[in-house]
Amino acid sequence: MVTTETINKIKMEQATGRVYNFNAGPAALPVSVLEQARDEMLNFGGSGMSVLELSHRSKHFEDILNRAEADLRTLFKIPSNYKILFLQGGNSLQFAMLPMNFRAPEASADYVQTGSWSKKAIGESEKLGKVRLAATTGKNIYIPSQAELDLDPQAAYLHFTANETIEGIEWATEPTPPPNVFLACDTSSNLGSRPLDVSKYGIIYAGVQKNLGPAGVTIVILREDLLERVPPKLPAMLDYKNLAEGKSLYNTPPCYSIYVVGLVLRWLIDLGGVEEIARQNATKATTLYQLIDSSGGFYKGVARPDSRSRMNVTFRLGTEELEKQFAKQATAQGLEGLKGHRSVGGLRASIYNAVSLEAVEVLAQFMKEFQRING
Amino acid sequence: MVTTETINKIKMEQATGRVYNFNAGPAALPVSVLEQARDEMLNFGGSGMSVLELSHRSKHFEDILNRAEADLRTLFKIPSNYKILFLQGGNSLQFAMLPMNFRAPEASADYVQTGSWSKKAIGESEKLGKVRLAATTGKNIYIPSQAELDLDPQAAYLHFTANETIEGIEWATEPTPPPNVFLACDTSSNLGSRPLDVSKYGIIYAGVQKNLGPAGVTIVILREDLLERVPPKLPAMLDYKNLAEGKSLYNTPPCYSIYVVGLVLRWLIDLGGVEEIARQNATKATTLYQLIDSSGGFYKGVARPDSRSRMNVTFRLGTEELEKQFAKQATAQGLEGLKGHRSVGGLRASIYNAVSLEAVEVLAQFMKEFQRING
Repeated sequence: MVTTETINKIKMEQATGRVYNFNAGPAALPVSVLEQARDEMLNFGGSGMSVLELSHRSKHFEDILNRAEADLRTLFKIPSNYKILFLQGGNSLQFAMLPMNFRAPEASADYVQTGSWSKKAIGESEKLGKVRLAATTGKNIYIPSQAELDLDPQAAYLHFTANETIEGIEWATEPTPPPNVFLACDTSSNLGSRPLDVSKYGIIYAGVQKNLGPAGVTIVILREDLLERVPPKLPAMLDYKNLAEGKSLYNTPPCYSIYVVGLVLRWLIDLGGVEEIARQNATKATTLYQLIDSSGGFYKGVARPDSRSRMNVTFRLGTEELEKQFAKQATAQGLEGLKGHRSVGGLRASIYNAVSLEAVEVLAQFMKEFQRING
Repeated sequence: MVTTETINKIKMEQATGRVYNFNAGPAALPVSVLEQARDEMLNFGGSGMSVLELSHRSKHFEDILNRAEADLRTLFKIPSNYKILFLQGGNSLQFAMLPMNFRAPEASADYVQTGSWSKKAIGESEKLGKVRLAATTGKNIYIPSQAELDLDPQAAYLHFTANETIEGIEWATEPTPPPNVFLACDTSSNLGSRPLDVSKYGIIYAGVQKNLGPAGVTIVILREDLLERVPPKLPAMLDYKNLAEGKSLYNTPPCYSIYVVGLVLRWLIDLGGVEEIARQNATKATTLYQLIDSSGGFYKGVARPDSRSRMNVTFRLGTEELEKQFAKQATAQGLEGLKGHRSVGGLRASIYNAVSLEAVEVLAQFMKEFQRING
């Protein structure tokens, strides 16, 4: 079914027992990170304890937290007037916290609706107050241009979803809000995958389980002057001001997840930072999209070409039955997680930071051979 | 300063590089759990991935989640009309979710104020609506008796804190609420340490980082008929009904923390369950309290004797300077985390499930010798 060369490559990987992980998140982590976590499991940094056992008030954990924050600041060139928070609850909680903190009772907030995750953000926001759509792409799968946005100059903020994992579309660059309106962005699935000009944003939030770590921690980066807008009497865990004052230690944080994020950030720095990973991510995405585009229609890209995601490559085959076979055979060959999201079907290769170029090449080889046999 | 025998014992432990961990939480975990986590770090159960990388929708993670839930149900004899949820945000978020979900706008809820954590629960609840104190212990450190409770028969619920970690007091048994008022309980620091009659409660919540796992996951056990009281339009992540329907998978859960909880539950089952661990915990607590009581006043217990916690043994020395020396010398000997909470000072030995009887005996020996030299 596949060539000997590909089989050998796959067998080599399988000899270590590891598969090629194309899951949409939680997703692949660098092997060196996992090895370090394994080696430090019973005794972290001479503490005599596992990170799983460290007091969050200990010097050891303080070092982990401070270093992760400092590395984030360096990697993403985060200006000093931005706070960095490590929180819990994922983006789904941020969807509610954002309007609770930053939309006054009578104000309205602008949202760009581009797909499943922006719809979720809008749904949560609507429960709590007034939402206005700056654009909606309906059933079409693309990112609107600046000219297509209908912006409210009085909006509390302008929200967009940097990358829609389910549809496989990504903003090439952020929209420009009206003066005095700040940008709020769900960057869960592409934060850390390329350079980002943080100074253009009021608030960025990201569950880290795509490019930056395991599930269980959400990074929030916010401009500190916005904290003055936080209303009184919010529950402590939903109050950005309280959480910022607590420096991620208002209550017990998700210590182990933060530790793993720290290891991933170190890996990223050693690799050459976001510029280098952006280059690698572009190569990986181009490899797959070129294959799709040159397949003579056997593979059909889901997203409008100018809006394609570098993180989640979504595509279809002629029939659902063939898609099923594709996913099944891929899994059998050690290529995991290629089934599309259950809400839309099809196929999806998520190629976040820790998915190697080699993994993508093996997938491309598999795709070519699957077409040769079934095309 | 200490006898050769004690030094040898400590040296043996230190040969493995591990310390005796008396932290108040996050706290000690069983070594066998850490070893298993270490061994499975790069490849969990033949999945070819780390648990840190597993999709939360994968069969492997589903198995982890289902098994953890089933083991909890078995261990704590949780009736079938109770839901079990694995959530994020710690107890601090539960403090707000409880009244948001179960106290109608005009209703009042009863709280028993026994110490620092019950005060926090009350503070969060007061931001959102009406709170009434069923009892308050003021500056005294004890658990009120049933006769001392002034209960509102119309209360939305009666809330108490099963164990106050900072003060070191614990309810021997739960209070009895008026008919038609359900019990709500913060059991963070003693859930899993002894048998519990879940059927007496409406809702139990517990951050697991004391007896049941690492930081990052909160277990909520709630009677399913209460879900009918949840008001509409709550944010999805704050809505028990939505979270219960999602079976801990409404969004990406803290997968790794849940996995470690599962390992700890297996360890607890293999050990003989909550009955056996309760016996061990009683022995550990008795060892320390007897030493305190027979120290001729050198060590002074903080809590009223009838209210003493089996989890957090709080005590004082004659001067703060001596307390400082105690903590410092203990740390130097590999006995970690004995400093009292920063808000109250003094000393505290947290002796949760995974703190071995041996660790407690080494501590007792250290305490005797510290008294011999400084008494």
